[in-house]
Amino acid sequence: MTLLERYHAVRGHTVALTQPLSDEDCGAQSMPDASPVKWHLAHTTWFFETFILERFEAGFQPFHPAFRVLFNSYYNGVGDKHPRPQRGLLTRPSMTEVRAYRQNVDARMARLLAQPDAELDGLVTLGLQHEQQHQELIVTDVKHLLAQNPLQPAYTERPPVAAEPAGALEWLAFDGGLTEIGYPGGDFCFDNELPRHRVHLAPYALASRLATNGDYLAFIDAGGYADPALWLAEGWDKVRAEGWSHPLYWRREDDGQWTEFTLHGRRRLDLNAPVAHVSLYEADAYAHWCGARLPTEAEWEVAAAQPGLRQMFGAGWQWTSSSYAPYPGFKPAPGAIGEYNGKFMVNQYVLRGSSAATPDGHARASYRNFFPAHARWQLTGIRLAR
Amino acid sequence: MTLLERYHAVRGHTVALTQPLSDEDCGAQSMPDASPVKWHLAHTTWFFETFILERFEAGFQPFHPAFRVLFNSYYNGVGDKHPRPQRGLLTRPSMTEVRAYRQNVDARMARLLAQPDAELDGLVTLGLQHEQQHQELIVTDVKHLLAQNPLQPAYTERPPVAAEPAGALEWLAFDGGLTEIGYPGGDFCFDNELPRHRVHLAPYALASRLATNGDYLAFIDAGGYADPALWLAEGWDKVRAEGWSHPLYWRREDDGQWTEFTLHGRRRLDLNAPVAHVSLYEADAYAHWCGARLPTEAEWEVAAAQPGLRQMFGAGWQWTSSSYAPYPGFKPAPGAIGEYNGKFMVNQYVLRGSSAATPDGHARASYRNFFPAHARWQLTGIRLAR
Amino acid sequence: MTLLERYHAVRGHTVALTQPLSDEDCGAQSMPDASPVKWHLAHTTWFFETFILERFEAGFQPFHPAFRVLFNSYYNGVGDKHPRPQRGLLTRPSMTEVRAYRQNVDARMARLLAQPDAELDGLVTLGLQHEQQHQELIVTDVKHLLAQNPLQPAYTERPPVAAEPAGALEWLAFDGGLTEIGYPGGDFCFDNELPRHRVHLAPYALASRLATNGDYLAFIDAGGYADPALWLAEGWDKVRAEGWSHPLYWRREDDGQWTEFTLHGRRRLDLNAPVAHVSLYEADAYAHWCGARLPTEAEWEVAAAQPGLRQMFGAGWQWTSSSYAPYPGFKPAPGAIGEYNGKFMVNQYVLRGSSAATPDGHARASYRNFFPAHARWQLTGIRLAR
Amino acid sequence: MTLLERYHAVRGHTVALTQPLSDEDCGAQSMPDASPVKWHLAHTTWFFETFILERFEAGFQPFHPAFRVLFNSYYNGVGDKHPRPQRGLLTRPSMTEVRAYRQNVDARMARLLAQPDAELDGLVTLGLQHEQQHQELIVTDVKHLLAQNPLQPAYTERPPVAAEPAGALEWLAFDGGLTEIGYPGGDFCFDNELPRHRVHLAPYALASRLATNGDYLAFIDAGGYADPALWLAEGWDKVRAEGWSHPLYWRREDDGQWTEFTLHGRRRLDLNAPVAHVSLYEADAYAHWCGARLPTEAEWEVAAAQPGLRQMFGAGWQWTSSSYAPYPGFKPAPGAIGEYNGKFMVNQYVLRGSSAATPDGHARASYRNFFPAHARWQLTGIRLAR
Repeated sequence: MTLLERYHAVRGHTVALTQPLSDEDCGAQSMPDASPVKWHLAHTTWFFETFILERFEAGFQPFHPAFRVLFNSYYNGVGDKHPRPQRGLLTRPSMTEVRAYRQNVDARMARLLAQPDAELDGLVTLGLQHEQQHQELIVTDVKHLLAQNPLQPAYTERPPVAAEPAGALEWLAFDGGLTEIGYPGGDFCFDNELPRHRVHLAPYALASRLATNGDYLAFIDAGGYADPALWLAEGWDKVRAEGWSHPLYWRREDDGQWTEFTLHGRRRLDLNAPVAHVSLYEADAYAHWCGARLPTEAEWEVAAAQPGLRQMFGAGWQWTSSSYAPYPGFKPAPGAIGEYNGKFMVNQYVLRGSSAATPDGHARASYRNFFPAHARWQLTGIRLAR
Repeated sequence: MTLLERYHAVRGHTVALTQPLSDEDCGAQSMPDASPVKWHLAHTTWFFETFILERFEAGFQPFHPAFRVLFNSYYNGVGDKHPRPQRGLLTRPSMTEVRAYRQNVDARMARLLAQPDAELDGLVTLGLQHEQQHQELIVTDVKHLLAQNPLQPAYTERPPVAAEPAGALEWLAFDGGLTEIGYPGGDFCFDNELPRHRVHLAPYALASRLATNGDYLAFIDAGGYADPALWLAEGWDKVRAEGWSHPLYWRREDDGQWTEFTLHGRRRLDLNAPVAHVSLYEADAYAHWCGARLPTEAEWEVAAAQPGLRQMFGAGWQWTSSSYAPYPGFKPAPGAIGEYNGKFMVNQYVLRGSSAATPDGHARASYRNFFPAHARWQLTGIRLAR
Repeated sequence: MTLLERYHAVRGHTVALTQPLSDEDCGAQSMPDASPVKWHLAHTTWFFETFILERFEAGFQPFHPAFRVLFNSYYNGVGDKHPRPQRGLLTRPSMTEVRAYRQNVDARMARLLAQPDAELDGLVTLGLQHEQQHQELIVTDVKHLLAQNPLQPAYTERPPVAAEPAGALEWLAFDGGLTEIGYPGGDFCFDNELPRHRVHLAPYALASRLATNGDYLAFIDAGGYADPALWLAEGWDKVRAEGWSHPLYWRREDDGQWTEFTLHGRRRLDLNAPVAHVSLYEADAYAHWCGARLPTEAEWEVAAAQPGLRQMFGAGWQWTSSSYAPYPGFKPAPGAIGEYNGKFMVNQYVLRGSSAATPDGHARASYRNFFPAHARWQLTGIRLAR
Repeated sequence: MTLLERYHAVRGHTVALTQPLSDEDCGAQSMPDASPVKWHLAHTTWFFETFILERFEAGFQPFHPAFRVLFNSYYNGVGDKHPRPQRGLLTRPSMTEVRAYRQNVDARMARLLAQPDAELDGLVTLGLQHEQQHQELIVTDVKHLLAQNPLQPAYTERPPVAAEPAGALEWLAFDGGLTEIGYPGGDFCFDNELPRHRVHLAPYALASRLATNGDYLAFIDAGGYADPALWLAEGWDKVRAEGWSHPLYWRREDDGQWTEFTLHGRRRLDLNAPVAHVSLYEADAYAHWCGARLPTEAEWEVAAAQPGLRQMFGAGWQWTSSSYAPYPGFKPAPGAIGEYNGKFMVNQYVLRGSSAATPDGHARASYRNFFPAHARWQLTGIRLAR
């Protein structure tokens, strides 16, 4: 696949994700942490326009002069930004205009990509990886929006597929010792995966599979949400302040049965499926209750190179106990694009693996996703360590 | 005009107000105090379905069982309500479905209105008056939404009309004495206008016209927003906490000129037009600075029966110093519909007159509009008294 | 009694109120609405120093240059103010220093009062009335502070006196008609009681006595706090947001008995005593439940001139439905002292009568106390009207 | 020194710290993060009573039954806790009673310590180390309280000592490699310093001394607080939301000179002294501006074993980039006392070294202090790494 082909494939996939949605669905913002789908469509386009066309296109003219501010997410080096919590108020530009914006930028990018240029190619690849990250956010943000609606509408009409029996949880042991983590090279990685460097690990074991809804239900039934001894102090404060008693989208119905809001609407809880939409606090308390702990990101990455572990990718992001921090010798890119990762390296925790909403080919063993400890609207689950 | 003709006229006008708006525009909610246009369209329909069809229609079936909750504004007697700040998250039902809801209810109402029934007629009249109130809210809520958009889009493509020269402000004197206020009877009024009752007024004078933007600009230029001696204590706290230095939609541009966001987009400030979008706090401070005061609602209503005052209706709602309270002997209607007015009679202030957004024939001399002292997104202006 | 004698009597009474309290008790502030006792002691002294000594004393020197700011409550005309919520952080000056401040100002005031001067006398009288208002606040603020303490300490060691049987509630009817309210002259009044002016009242009736704890308990037992139909909308929001289910200091003990925190510590609820520490919202809901309403301030004042009503003074402040507003022709004093009353005339409701904490001789029939509708830490009770 | 002698020495030092303070000073709480001195005095005593006397004393009776709840800080295993933000409202028990509480517990502890018992000795040592931690908090909490007072009172009458010239900052290089951190054994350590374990470090360098006020002033003068490119995103949000433009207690006076609030009152800024009262955000931005970074806790600890670094102890706590996390194999103690450290291991950052307020002999190379990234009221400073 040429880069141009890849460009069209990725960009097309973003638009395909919006197919089941009305323009009204695409405009709403359910909370400050989430963005409207329309905003994702525009912002990913803005990324190409601002970081590539503005630099490489002869006689560059912006598609619309106001978009530079409207669709800037957090790049202070680019200038002003529309306030994040007010993205849902941008009923103009309309979806029609945003689609035209995408087509315009796509056409200009296609012209540019006709000429090979190593630096351009690197930025386009980054732009496509960036767009793939937003593809996952489109899914999780729309899910959060629809979940707020008392009608509990489905995102997709496709019928859900029941999870296979999870099987017994086994423990796989690893020797640890002096080893290496970080991207080993070969293709693309984000700056936060570099440099590859040595770490020393004590011997450890990881669970062969993720914790299931059934596993987590046992924790709930055992009073997990009522016992402060299991919780980080900050997590316990959150449990009480927010009244948490189950994962984000679960509900105990009047008949005592548990349901979960899914992309297929509200459904009977699938006990074999990996538990999702739990915060780090919940993951940690569950691990504590199991007499286990969460893995470090290094333990996870080193184990990923070895056989035997299931559900490493595609089954759910896996909380680690590792705070999101720069690797020794980390160097962000110069200029505004250097704001991509480094400035978020505080009070966030690393998640490893990938979820069902992660685009194919996007994740890898060295990939570092990150969210605050309280975040629950992502597809975040639990792999135990000890 | 028959009641059915009136029904169609009012209902049709609501829909006509949405003509310049996209479905995206109709779904967004710019703040908890405002509602999406789509919600207004559905709620006014819900009013007819819940308070009339449910009672008078044989074999009543709701259009959609969830709408009873989704589009209940504040009637505890009807049951649960969707939380007000989350009205903007209801991307479903779509505008298309809400339009179908309106058509369905309109057809059923037309059948019902074929049979004369005095009680039914009274409720339909109330429903139409209620809908007219929401017509004004549609305009002010959309204005607020569009004002948040950095693109500052216009609601209407019609060109604005410049205000005529305001002319000198004159004082008209009134004798006061023992007099009466409240609806004198004849046609329709809301329960809060009754009973008509005696009040005693000291002699007073009212300004012949509303304060203009030019008048108010003089207050600003004289440092009105910087002098606590002019302000109610609560108003001064607000000025400092919110950084108020001008009416809601004004802006001083880089060239020093003042502009105002209007339904025609952002425009050069029209110095002859009545000042609008000021809170009671600002109205009171301005009056204080003029060596005057705000009228009481009784002073306003008594004066309205006499010749000589201009801009009593259609030029802007006029803050009074009267707290919104029940008239002596006030009786709300029994049942849920009695929640219409009475339960709001605390910490609100009465506004008299009407604005350019008030539907024709809706207001009258005894009409009591009311908003909290800090509200600024309505078309609220100032008539001085002394 | 000469003015100087009155001065010493009032000032001495303030100090006497602090006798049961430690210096630690006097320094704490239990909420932004309440002030530390030490602050009350200093502020009332500041009033004499700032508004009287500074103007009348030859060669005036402030006792401490920082006190002008530290102990200014809300007089913008005097200049800066220490932020109200941080009054409890002023561990310096110490109580010892504040006592010295009082003695110093008292000595200087005594010298000044040796010379008769009408204007001076008027201001001293105002200062003493002001100090009496703070005497009541000292009691209610200390009560609130001690109530927060799990030890539930008593303010006074004197044993409580049980209320006499309340007797049946009777309705006294009044004709209304054209009448007058406002201070009729003779001695001292606050500016907000003037000018005396005519009002017209419809015929009405007032309850012969205040609602008792027993009366109010019946409202609770009947589910009063669970029925939105009884409440003003804003009151109902408060009930749910704050979880109100009884007056401020009541508690239902494990044995099902009700207790109330009092100045004598926590005590079994006295069913004959007037209910206290209810908000306007609760007073209004209770009245609604009784098929009655709250009186207007004019109704209360006119009735106070007639025989037959009990507990008009000394038994509890009585909420009225009257918003605190200027009387027709109201004129505040010029200068900073004019901030005393007028600037609070918004979003507050008038209370009439007086409480057990009101100093002897302070209140009168035309007296207008005022608090926001949600306030509960004052000795606020209920007299019904209809 | 016997354990009993050590007990008396440490307990006596706590009381000595309160010598310059009035009872009023000891009762106030300046913010939820800080506690009143009186509360510290009582809580440290509660620790001995609850974890030692209750278990080891024959016929144990609590000094006061309510103190178990009142002075419990955060031990859920012990039961209920008085809410932290309301510690300043506990005017009872008085300082006199709390002093009696200390003497009572001291006498009982002395009787107990007459009998040697290894388990008891371990708990007493922990209790004394705990008390030393609170000694530092007494100083920083009182400093914060006095800093809020416009009178800017001094804690101590002793004159301040000017810092010696800081000298040029030099870089000391370390090889890294496979090494060990964690308490090596010998005497006492907290559970969070264990187990000692291997880590691999890349080569690195540390600054020979801490950043001075003069160094930091250059960062301010260069516009450090105005350039988002230097800041972590969360730090920049804080800078703007809180209006930060200098360390917590600095102030630029009208004459342009900088002062700092100190235990000696407000003083001219000492340019040679280590900068203190900066958040992790500020430390990180300063390091960024210097082209450097903050050390990890492992880099700091390994370097501490080597010669050449100055101001490692006693000059200020030193922010590291290490999130506070369990060491591999970390095991908290069983029961309530296991809540001491482990449950705080999220969203906190490790500080190394010690400050002028740290009691002699309390800190060591493996000691792990920790605070949230935004905390500024501790004596927190900056050592650069690269």
